[in-house]
Amino acid sequence: MNVLVLGAGQLARMMALAVKPLNINIRAFDVGSGNVVDPLSTNMTFGNLTQGIEFADFITAEFEHIDHQTLALCQASGKLRPSSQAIKVGGDRRLEKDLLVKCDVANAKHKIIETKADFDQALNNLSFPLILKSALAGYDGKGQWRLKDKAKAEDVWLDIKAFFDGGEHGVKHAVVAEQMVPFDREVSLVGARDSQGNTVVYPLTENHHTNGVLSVSIATKVDEVLQAQAKKVFDSIATELNYIGVLAIEFFQIGEQLLVNEIAPRVHNSGHWTQQGADTCQFENHLRAVCDLPLGSTELIRPSAMINILGEDEVPNEILNVASTTLHWYGKSKRAGRKMGHINVSGNSEKQLAARLSLLADMLPEAAFEELTPYVKVFKNKLT
Amino acid sequence: MNVLVLGAGQLARMMALAVKPLNINIRAFDVGSGNVVDPLSTNMTFGNLTQGIEFADFITAEFEHIDHQTLALCQASGKLRPSSQAIKVGGDRRLEKDLLVKCDVANAKHKIIETKADFDQALNNLSFPLILKSALAGYDGKGQWRLKDKAKAEDVWLDIKAFFDGGEHGVKHAVVAEQMVPFDREVSLVGARDSQGNTVVYPLTENHHTNGVLSVSIATKVDEVLQAQAKKVFDSIATELNYIGVLAIEFFQIGEQLLVNEIAPRVHNSGHWTQQGADTCQFENHLRAVCDLPLGSTELIRPSAMINILGEDEVPNEILNVASTTLHWYGKSKRAGRKMGHINVSGNSEKQLAARLSLLADMLPEAAFEELTPYVKVFKNKLT
Repeated sequence: MNVLVLGAGQLARMMALAVKPLNINIRAFDVGSGNVVDPLSTNMTFGNLTQGIEFADFITAEFEHIDHQTLALCQASGKLRPSSQAIKVGGDRRLEKDLLVKCDVANAKHKIIETKADFDQALNNLSFPLILKSALAGYDGKGQWRLKDKAKAEDVWLDIKAFFDGGEHGVKHAVVAEQMVPFDREVSLVGARDSQGNTVVYPLTENHHTNGVLSVSIATKVDEVLQAQAKKVFDSIATELNYIGVLAIEFFQIGEQLLVNEIAPRVHNSGHWTQQGADTCQFENHLRAVCDLPLGSTELIRPSAMINILGEDEVPNEILNVASTTLHWYGKSKRAGRKMGHINVSGNSEKQLAARLSLLADMLPEAAFEELTPYVKVFKNKLT
Repeated sequence: MNVLVLGAGQLARMMALAVKPLNINIRAFDVGSGNVVDPLSTNMTFGNLTQGIEFADFITAEFEHIDHQTLALCQASGKLRPSSQAIKVGGDRRLEKDLLVKCDVANAKHKIIETKADFDQALNNLSFPLILKSALAGYDGKGQWRLKDKAKAEDVWLDIKAFFDGGEHGVKHAVVAEQMVPFDREVSLVGARDSQGNTVVYPLTENHHTNGVLSVSIATKVDEVLQAQAKKVFDSIATELNYIGVLAIEFFQIGEQLLVNEIAPRVHNSGHWTQQGADTCQFENHLRAVCDLPLGSTELIRPSAMINILGEDEVPNEILNVASTTLHWYGKSKRAGRKMGHINVSGNSEKQLAARLSLLADMLPEAAFEELTPYVKVFKNKLT
């Protein structure tokens, strides 16, 4: 089976490693160079997009910010899973919010802003503080503004207006204003849906961010009520999109209520722990869905965590002495803040996991993993 | 880090997949073609052996039947781990038996046969039944004779003589005659030793063979006494060889006594279950040892089994419905009896593992997996 992945980053790389044993061969379309490459050896070129589409039995994507012409070409081939519509929803907060409303799933009160009038309306109808996010651009905390009260509103508007004016010609920009939610924690649900409509979801994962970028994810025993609530949202959204593949949903948890923050139509950083903590990892399950193979069990094997390596191209080798610790480099060149790799670690109990996380926190340089030590303390305290 | 593997089969392939996340790049020397290839895409050629040695920070091997000139070249580079001496021991039963005697580890009473006089002496000094194995040629049941009593001795000798005469010119052939041991079961110990002399071993694995080829391996809870006995043998042999990397030892178990059957200076088929059943898999631990990284924990995560796929290039997709089942194809073309892939499966308890094995046995074609159903019955009975 041959699969073309749109995007040639770490997610395509981990897909390729996960499904080579299933005799699924992955090639990746590098949107930057326009070349189809081997995701495990990106200097190996196989031609252009047309040739990549020709090669593939199925086409999928590792990210949602793909130009619409490429998506249209892939959709026209009949091989694209999930559909271009689903991928676009992930790349445009306007479509995303429309979908959430359509599916009647709880999310933060919001307003789409394209003009000064929209902006003023948002100020009047929503409660402060607000978070304003670009509808189209990036993720990981880029293109975002926070507004505590009306005092700074004019400054923020000027900044947003400059952002609109500086945007790509011909693209209609927008910003989504949301009431900031005083959430207890951020969790995400990663799951898969196949072409028959079957769905499976992994246990809810707790996520911690550093400067808007995921730094630690942890999957422990499941709160059945919360899990059922999240699964219902997953099924509703995945069914509406007639989705095929892995889909991730980020939530804010407030008490026992989950509000959808955003959705990602792809394998997700908060699901990397499944590489060793779940019966079937998210990368394999994504390709199982895409290639019409049975979905694999998503059961948690044992409490597991993932630590992102941001902006560093080495970590002390001694971390490999900590039992069950695996190190995943993405083979990328170093750049400040860049996702360079991750560390997975598991324990036979939450207590053992906490102890191992504690050992890792002591070994990893504090400057690059600043929030790890405080987080581990909180996790340990919760267990006692 | 760059590593050259001597041999370009499934073991090199699984090494490459296991350590790509550690940024260790594996190339493989295909002894058949004389080309250095990408083990994940064997039509990709990187040059000849000299260029492969040049490329490598370290060199290792996926099998022991490598011509001595190649081994000498690699040894001279100072990069070969384990040493050519250790690899040769695995490829020559004479050296292997000498090593076992030197290390004073229990093994079957035996006699090395190079002449008719040796053969006659074996008949007189050993008890029937005997098994006679070529000292040099292959494994997996090839080049073997069984002798129940003296009646057929002359026939077997003529066969062995023909084998000697038909052998490679200039190579001194031999056969090792062993007393056949009325063993209770066959087990193996896979472990790793690093350049500092640290050793780690996986739990003893129970092995079942079909026509002399491994068909099922199973790793469950450890018998501490037996495990300690096996670990002592491992340490003794690995230290004697100043071994670096993964080493496998096959034993016959008779009551509470382990007799060494043979050793394999490499990752081993009976260790494939570690890909999902152990904290660190054998492929990663081999490369960790070779590349001077800390050895990883060998703890059993949960009861696990491996089923070899022999001579088949497809199995029913429905097996992927069985929780925790993973399928590993080697990307090889079909040939009768050939090791084409394997299936790993785990359970949270031995009972759950037995139930899952039972489901798999029902789904897999009986002709190709003839001993699976009877074996699963025996395993289930032991649990009740």
